[in-house]
Amino acid sequence: MRIIDEKVLEDMALGAAVLGTGGGGDPYIGMLMARQAIRDYGSVELYTLDELNDDDLIVPTAMMGAPTVMVEKMPNGDDIINAFQSVGKYIGKPIRATMSIEAGGLNSVVPIYVAARLRLPMVDCDGMGRAFPEIQMCTHTIYGISATPFAMSDERGNTVLMETINNKWTETFARSVTVDMGAMAMIALYAATVKQLKEAAIPGTMSKAERIGQTIRSARSQEENPVDTVRDAVGGFLIFKGKISDIERRTEAGFAKGDAHIDGIDEYVDQELLLSFQNEHLAVRIDGEFKVTVPDLIAVLDVDTGEPVTTEGMRYGFRVAVIAIPCDSKWRSPKGLELVGPRYFGYDVDYIPVEDVYG
Amino acid sequence: MRIIDEKVLEDMALGAAVLGTGGGGDPYIGMLMARQAIRDYGSVELYTLDELNDDDLIVPTAMMGAPTVMVEKMPNGDDIINAFQSVGKYIGKPIRATMSIEAGGLNSVVPIYVAARLRLPMVDCDGMGRAFPEIQMCTHTIYGISATPFAMSDERGNTVLMETINNKWTETFARSVTVDMGAMAMIALYAATVKQLKEAAIPGTMSKAERIGQTIRSARSQEENPVDTVRDAVGGFLIFKGKISDIERRTEAGFAKGDAHIDGIDEYVDQELLLSFQNEHLAVRIDGEFKVTVPDLIAVLDVDTGEPVTTEGMRYGFRVAVIAIPCDSKWRSPKGLELVGPRYFGYDVDYIPVEDVYG
Repeated sequence: MRIIDEKVLEDMALGAAVLGTGGGGDPYIGMLMARQAIRDYGSVELYTLDELNDDDLIVPTAMMGAPTVMVEKMPNGDDIINAFQSVGKYIGKPIRATMSIEAGGLNSVVPIYVAARLRLPMVDCDGMGRAFPEIQMCTHTIYGISATPFAMSDERGNTVLMETINNKWTETFARSVTVDMGAMAMIALYAATVKQLKEAAIPGTMSKAERIGQTIRSARSQEENPVDTVRDAVGGFLIFKGKISDIERRTEAGFAKGDAHIDGIDEYVDQELLLSFQNEHLAVRIDGEFKVTVPDLIAVLDVDTGEPVTTEGMRYGFRVAVIAIPCDSKWRSPKGLELVGPRYFGYDVDYIPVEDVYG
Repeated sequence: MRIIDEKVLEDMALGAAVLGTGGGGDPYIGMLMARQAIRDYGSVELYTLDELNDDDLIVPTAMMGAPTVMVEKMPNGDDIINAFQSVGKYIGKPIRATMSIEAGGLNSVVPIYVAARLRLPMVDCDGMGRAFPEIQMCTHTIYGISATPFAMSDERGNTVLMETINNKWTETFARSVTVDMGAMAMIALYAATVKQLKEAAIPGTMSKAERIGQTIRSARSQEENPVDTVRDAVGGFLIFKGKISDIERRTEAGFAKGDAHIDGIDEYVDQELLLSFQNEHLAVRIDGEFKVTVPDLIAVLDVDTGEPVTTEGMRYGFRVAVIAIPCDSKWRSPKGLELVGPRYFGYDVDYIPVEDVYG
């Protein structure tokens, strides 16, 4: 067991934003919420799965919606507690702990808020090892764990609970209700036992995020090259440096979708990178050719500071480095690629592991 | 206590379709479902509110969606049972009986199906005294009864439950999910005690529907003028006879909306009636002037048989009679008119009781 205090929280939020591949919510807002909760209610205990009992019940908590809205509309905190407690009430059993469903600036730390406020521990694992835009895109789905009972709450006090026949239906219904709730909702889902999670979850995501965050901060203070440091910390490949020359955005069915054009600089001059996103970065084409796609991670960093840039934070003129990171091996199974491979997102290409291209 | 057997069911379905003012679902499909359930499981007991205990819990059941879809997509029966039982499980108390939330071809008899299949009684009342297109348009709302816990289920086995801060939010979320479920869902809502219903519900709607149905059938067999007979049975006013010359329809956000143009015949020749509907008939304009609006009832009948014509059943060339019927006095209160008056539906006119125009 380890303790998440304010300092650990900051490192986790920073590191998780790298793993969030541009999505998973605004890191700043999530950090503010969780930090205030730690100040008000105390630090949070972080357990590994091995430190818990096999039949302990774990319920992840998260934000759902378009991060573009998140910047303007802050959750009030009661919403996520309502969602979490609704699942517990519905199941009728005590919940032992919460966890992150994905790695991402907001969604790695939302559960820290819940854990602090309810004096519950948190588990050091997640269901993606990165961020993905849809509910069913969770390693839990590969292992047959239902996203339901699923609860979603808004800041007004409305709660919607569902039981669906598969996790794609949860996504469908929840996406519509999220739009009605103002393009953002707080959710609790994928209730599972520790025994199930030992098979289905991706272990160690929170401590990995913390290590990445620490590395970025220490590189910054020692004036090392922060981009190379992040690359080494995540075990990824630096694939591009450039200047954002154009961004097209559209909010579509509750998602923030779009494309960014990045003109190469330094050794990448005369190359153009096209980055496509749907809440998270999905695919990179360089000079028209697919180079990296989901489920591998695409991290966009400020070239000078190494700070991760979210999809909604990208602006014309930003100078960025693009790092590609191998995804968890669970995603590379046939079931995993069916859920989150490039074809699911409409790209007519086979998935090629990033290390086969850049390794 | 009275018994709803196959014969009573047929009269109720026919009479309720008149009160349904063109909506409330297809009467034929509802009748088939309920008749089969009576054959398979036995007749249904119909109680008045006075015959039950004040603290008995009553949960209405209904279909939600665009009736245009209903014609092609038949509910499978398990869906409505799932919705009903989800509310019961959520509340955690035994449900004494079900009831209709509105008068209408389908929604008056859906609860008969539920009652027959679950061997529960039904209550002789409803929440509209007619049909309306939206969830919150229920006399329960006037008296502060929540539509939630609200459950909706589809024929695949998906169920969505909600707790909302007011009944308009139930409508908003449920409408979106209904669209996702295929523009139709089966619902259970407005759980209330008998004591609450004595104040909030409209009593006697089922037996009134039965009387209207009986009257139409007997007029038919005695070759009386069926339109005049229906008018007398409902206490309404015959305001127009004509031939449908044009219909514009659109399915919009889960509703079947549109306008029918009717050219006068007989003593109404040279007049034109414009009938606007949203699942139910909402307003009648004759030669451009508003004559009847919600919440008063507008019934469109086949001029030869007196059969009610649903909004989705209206066709070019049909010869119809239009009957206007005063609504229940609960709807004429300021709160009632705010919920279902002409301005709510976008008509910039004050409500004038139909008997002030035609009485």
